Amino acid sequence: MISRGDVEAARTRIDSRVLRTPVLRLDRLWLKLEQLQHTGSFKARGAFNRVLAAAETDGLPEAGVIAASGGNAGLAFAYAARELGARAEVFVPETAPPVKVARLRALGAAVRQVGREYAEAYEAATKRAADTGALFGHPYDQPEVCAGQGTLALELEEQTGGVETVLVSVGGGGLMAGIAAALEGRSRVVAVEPEACPSFHAALEAGRPVDAPVSGVAADSLGARRVGDIPYAVARRTAVESILVSDADVIAARRALWQDHHIVVEHGTAAAYAALLTGAYTPSTDETVAVICCGANTDPADLA
Amino acid sequence: MISRGDVEAARTRIDSRVLRTPVLRLDRLWLKLEQLQHTGSFKARGAFNRVLAAAETDGLPEAGVIAASGGNAGLAFAYAARELGARAEVFVPETAPPVKVARLRALGAAVRQVGREYAEAYEAATKRAADTGALFGHPYDQPEVCAGQGTLALELEEQTGGVETVLVSVGGGGLMAGIAAALEGRSRVVAVEPEACPSFHAALEAGRPVDAPVSGVAADSLGARRVGDIPYAVARRTAVESILVSDADVIAARRALWQDHHIVVEHGTAAAYAALLTGAYTPSTDETVAVICCGANTDPADLA
Ligand SMILES: Cc1ncc(COP(=O)(O)O)c(C=O)c1O
Ligand SMILES: Cc1ncc(COP(=O)(O)O)c(C=O)c1O
Repeated sequence: MISRGDVEAARTRIDSRVLRTPVLRLDRLWLKLEQLQHTGSFKARGAFNRVLAAAETDGLPEAGVIAASGGNAGLAFAYAARELGARAEVFVPETAPPVKVARLRALGAAVRQVGREYAEAYEAATKRAADTGALFGHPYDQPEVCAGQGTLALELEEQTGGVETVLVSVGGGGLMAGIAAALEGRSRVVAVEPEACPSFHAALEAGRPVDAPVSGVAADSLGARRVGDIPYAVARRTAVESILVSDADVIAARRALWQDHHIVVEHGTAAAYAALLTGAYTPSTDETVAVICCGANTDPADLA
Repeated sequence: MISRGDVEAARTRIDSRVLRTPVLRLDRLWLKLEQLQHTGSFKARGAFNRVLAAAETDGLPEAGVIAASGGNAGLAFAYAARELGARAEVFVPETAPPVKVARLRALGAAVRQVGREYAEAYEAATKRAADTGALFGHPYDQPEVCAGQGTLALELEEQTGGVETVLVSVGGGGLMAGIAAALEGRSRVVAVEPEACPSFHAALEAGRPVDAPVSGVAADSLGARRVGDIPYAVARRTAVESILVSDADVIAARRALWQDHHIVVEHGTAAAYAALLTGAYTPSTDETVAVICCGANTDPADLA
């Protein structure tokens, strides 16, 4: 479990390492442009907090940092490790697209391609960390990771003077948890997921984290099979609400962000915006709302 | 000629109509994200100021607003007219791409396709304005237009606490002039142009505005044949410096803004950034610099 105090501590730790990403105000709607963060997503925040917190207590292990992710979390841990002078090893499935592998290598990470599914790469990564003493960085289910992601909510609060509602896309739930902890008692937090990968929604229905289907356009960033235990606990404590949107709505929302606002994001980000566009979330007349633009690791070609 | 006072007056006039665009800080470099402005460029500022200033003195003419431009200035005048409840007529050459014509129509403008070159469309537009009494909005060579563009520099100053140097792309020079007037005695202003459309550079060499070649990747936004008289006079008074970059550098800078910072801009914007990337402008060790990201009306497909 994490609280606002953990997020504040994270901020002190990572402040000189991450960008204070800007906000764009559109009347009562604020867009937090976190897709402009180092490595193109908020994941850099959690990665720095995880690695720096470990370095404070035990020093950084000689064996460096290990992550399992072909996506934004992998990029973020590779980047954080490089900036802090540590080695990084990132485990991905054999099926990982060459462009993602190349990007990890460009950040100096050693890439290990293991198994056909993410679960196999994950297992190999945790085993390797146990064997070598390297620091394992989870994409969402570690307190330092969640607290690091939440630092963007402290910035948002300063930049906007506080909003009533924050809409955030959810995969494993680390970003949602960090924001909900940071803004507990201050803002309503609404978790938005595609119907095709509804890990948090499924957990709320079951009363605990359970496996959920994973498919659709946003699966590469929002496709955690199961919401994390820490994120789930924080979300329950803080009464995070849950909304589902269709893949078609996600696609339309990503196009609208480009055509109407000249902002390019990945499908994972567009989910949160889709909740507004479709009316799945309808603010009251004077309600102030923020949408977290969380990532831009996307091919913009189809926005032409 | 315009001064900071004109820019401040413009700001009061247009403040509720335009977006306060955010800045992204990258150490000592600030990017002013003006490509997120309504209609995708700073041109909305000058257009609103031109139309609102006219409305204050004489009221808006029944015949509405007329502009000559298939590019960002045309979009901006069409948008401003629509928002202010005025008619808009935009003259473009017969050769204007259908997508641009469609965009103008989508903003409610009547589009007139006249002649094979911009100069013919321009002439038809001014004649029509004289005949009908409509308000003619120039893309750069009117004091209200220059002063309106300059309002972004007042925001920049507040957002950054002031920078030593501002790098800005130049076509007809309205944006440069507005910024230079706003920051006179406060910041160095550096005008950046592609070698393939060097209207301001040519004017400095000749000692007065002269016709210059127009070609290359940024011609659609920076390809004014001749820098405006007002912009030229303001730039001389305020000692704006001039730098040229190659088209290859412009293309590379646009790619770098996407790959390194997840920002999509048009080639016209990338010119200013290219001056930094290539070292054509080399800041001193502690110099604070701002680059104006002025437009995003571009097809992002080639950034894939
Ligand atoms: C762009 C983007 N948005 C949202 C998420 C979901 O984050 P979380 O797993 O913390 O819920 C991710 C995760 O990779 C992401 O990359
Ligand atoms: C994106 C962009 N940048 C720069 C310019 C140049 O502006 P100016 O003509 O005021 O020099 C323009 C003009 O259309 C533009 O659209």
